[in-house]
Amino acid sequence: MIKAPKKNVNLAFVGLSKRGNGLLNMVLDSMDDVNITAVCDVYEDRVNKAALDVLNKRKAEPLKTLDYKELLHRKDIDAVVIPTSWETHFDICIDFMEAGKYAASEVGGANSIDQCWQLVKTYEKTKTPVMILENCCYGKTEMTVLNMVKKGIFGELIHAQGGYEHDLRSEVAMGNHNRHYRLNNYKNRNGDLYPTHELGPISKWLDINRGNRMLYLCSMSSKSAGINEWIRSRKGNDFENADFNFALGDIVTTMIKCAHGETILLIHDTSLPRPYSRGNRLQGTKAIWLEDKMSFFIDGVSPASGWDHEWESFDKYYEQYEHPLWQWYRKKGLVGGHDGMDYLSMRAFIESVKNGTDTPIDAYDMAAWMSITCLSEQSVAMGGHPVAIPDFTNGRWINKRPVVQSKYCLDEVCNDEVYE
Amino acid sequence: MIKAPKKNVNLAFVGLSKRGNGLLNMVLDSMDDVNITAVCDVYEDRVNKAALDVLNKRKAEPLKTLDYKELLHRKDIDAVVIPTSWETHFDICIDFMEAGKYAASEVGGANSIDQCWQLVKTYEKTKTPVMILENCCYGKTEMTVLNMVKKGIFGELIHAQGGYEHDLRSEVAMGNHNRHYRLNNYKNRNGDLYPTHELGPISKWLDINRGNRMLYLCSMSSKSAGINEWIRSRKGNDFENADFNFALGDIVTTMIKCAHGETILLIHDTSLPRPYSRGNRLQGTKAIWLEDKMSFFIDGVSPASGWDHEWESFDKYYEQYEHPLWQWYRKKGLVGGHDGMDYLSMRAFIESVKNGTDTPIDAYDMAAWMSITCLSEQSVAMGGHPVAIPDFTNGRWINKRPVVQSKYCLDEVCNDEVYE
Repeated sequence: MIKAPKKNVNLAFVGLSKRGNGLLNMVLDSMDDVNITAVCDVYEDRVNKAALDVLNKRKAEPLKTLDYKELLHRKDIDAVVIPTSWETHFDICIDFMEAGKYAASEVGGANSIDQCWQLVKTYEKTKTPVMILENCCYGKTEMTVLNMVKKGIFGELIHAQGGYEHDLRSEVAMGNHNRHYRLNNYKNRNGDLYPTHELGPISKWLDINRGNRMLYLCSMSSKSAGINEWIRSRKGNDFENADFNFALGDIVTTMIKCAHGETILLIHDTSLPRPYSRGNRLQGTKAIWLEDKMSFFIDGVSPASGWDHEWESFDKYYEQYEHPLWQWYRKKGLVGGHDGMDYLSMRAFIESVKNGTDTPIDAYDMAAWMSITCLSEQSVAMGGHPVAIPDFTNGRWINKRPVVQSKYCLDEVCNDEVYE
Repeated sequence: MIKAPKKNVNLAFVGLSKRGNGLLNMVLDSMDDVNITAVCDVYEDRVNKAALDVLNKRKAEPLKTLDYKELLHRKDIDAVVIPTSWETHFDICIDFMEAGKYAASEVGGANSIDQCWQLVKTYEKTKTPVMILENCCYGKTEMTVLNMVKKGIFGELIHAQGGYEHDLRSEVAMGNHNRHYRLNNYKNRNGDLYPTHELGPISKWLDINRGNRMLYLCSMSSKSAGINEWIRSRKGNDFENADFNFALGDIVTTMIKCAHGETILLIHDTSLPRPYSRGNRLQGTKAIWLEDKMSFFIDGVSPASGWDHEWESFDKYYEQYEHPLWQWYRKKGLVGGHDGMDYLSMRAFIESVKNGTDTPIDAYDMAAWMSITCLSEQSVAMGGHPVAIPDFTNGRWINKRPVVQSKYCLDEVCNDEVYE
């Protein structure tokens, strides 16, 4: 235990966009042991909407503010959820950690290595836990694979792939109308701007920061054409940014080498037409999983004659290898967005606060995963030149760090009683 | 026309492994206008078997030899097919080109950039065409995609992927018993040893060497564990090479940047358990194709509501966009191995000899595609450092070079009458 345990959690929300408001309402609807004591955003309409939601559902109005610094030293806040812009996650997290409050950041990438180190050093100085709310770590499929990895079904892990493959052309192009920070990032930065949806689960499969680490990466970016094409074909040649020379290439590919010889391949693909995918692929000496096919091949188990090997459906192995957290969760009843994983990642944070423990995705994970963004920008800028990935644990990864025995642990599958 | 046209082709085979013998018999069974006048291999049993096949099917015994140099200056040989080891393709091709005979190499990768230049310079000096028999360029799926690309269905091309993803563990591990050169390559070399099955079709989609070119690459290799694991689990810990430290990583990933900003991603994956795939993916501003799903999404055509885009099956678009060569081929009746594409690539070579024209996959293509092997070895050895890809055309790629108007042309879709 790091902090005193609590029966109920007093929670503040900083950042109340559509995403932030959605998370707020999920908490209001599903977590009786959490009180919302403050809501904050830079836009007043969002703050008022959120306060009204809290009042309607909990009969108590929260503190409202446009300046998160007003919340730093309030006694009626134990923890804060921070679904703000990519540019502000680190600063706000660090300020709340300095004030002794658990901080949970929404997903994004780092702008610099310095801010990753700031986060880690603040954690080490204050002993205040932080967590990136990487919901995909708690996805049904990702956790099934995690369970299979920890049970040795893949054998020795060799290679993992994933991507953020999501047609966001309209969101980017309409950025001046939807108050979204994505447009400005795409105009100015070229690298993997959003790596953690795939890299988070992959890191847990590969024991990153707990016996393994990422050593270096090379990134390459394609030309940028997708957003311009979308604007011209949907909005006409005179629409804003129709001819803007976007910095971000439509496809950014990143190769990462790990300390134990595994390779990771990431693809950022959000400016071209396509169905959504996290593009996962995992290969070991005994098995391969392919998300886009939702299929497995397990050596000696799946049908094979000579060179003809046959894919088997994920569904078959899901029954056999469902993660115990998901077994528990299905029985309890799924909650909230993104096929139920939003609830699990939020609940993982809340349980950490209640129990006074560290988080299952901690400061070192957050720094390492988010650092890939600015490191990939560096590599792209230098024509794919390899760039070293810092060891944010300062060597602590070599000796396995202690694991919190919690339902929400992603570093191992815990004893059965944890999931009861 | 480069050479005098011929009504019949006198063909020699140098290299008569299982693969070479299979190609020989396909020619014997399906091409009445081709005479087999000589057969050669370093193993006498293979030569005798081949000569017997020719005698049985054509009632005329070919010249038999263990030394291909005996064939160089024979008047009864117009062209030679060279399914030899990876190490010998270049030298044998060059020797036959020097002797004025059309040369067709089986698939493989280069050992050095120098041998790629030797090939190109021999072609330029002798005007004797050469071709790499890259059968996958003529695959039904690859050619459908080629037709769609040339018709503009993908819009502006942005990114292409492919792989040689084939569980070859038994072939490699048993290399001392099957007379295969793969084992020795895997023991000594680390890079993408076999890139052309995917890079060939991709290059034709992207106009490589005809208006576009590959600029540089970065390669990364995983650890090597798959072959050792296979040997230990199948043959026991005392079997040969059970503990050999193979040079080749199980997964080798290569990123390539093109002159017009496109990226290409290649994966060599032959030492781990998996079903076969060439792992193709092609993305443009208007469409995406994914081989592993055998699916397309076409912007404005495929179902989409908001962010929910739906994949459509390849079958649907195959009917609409079948390449005219395949329309002709289906009506004629499919022949030979690998779903019919072996015949098409061989026939493309034979037709070039008959018509005295250049080949549809010429010396510049062969040099560029095969060079990726040794360049990826260099990049892997230097930790992913970018490596420049030579311009083997010495600038001729900028102005589109003339295209042979032939059924087998891969650089454009020809006029209808060509396919009648």
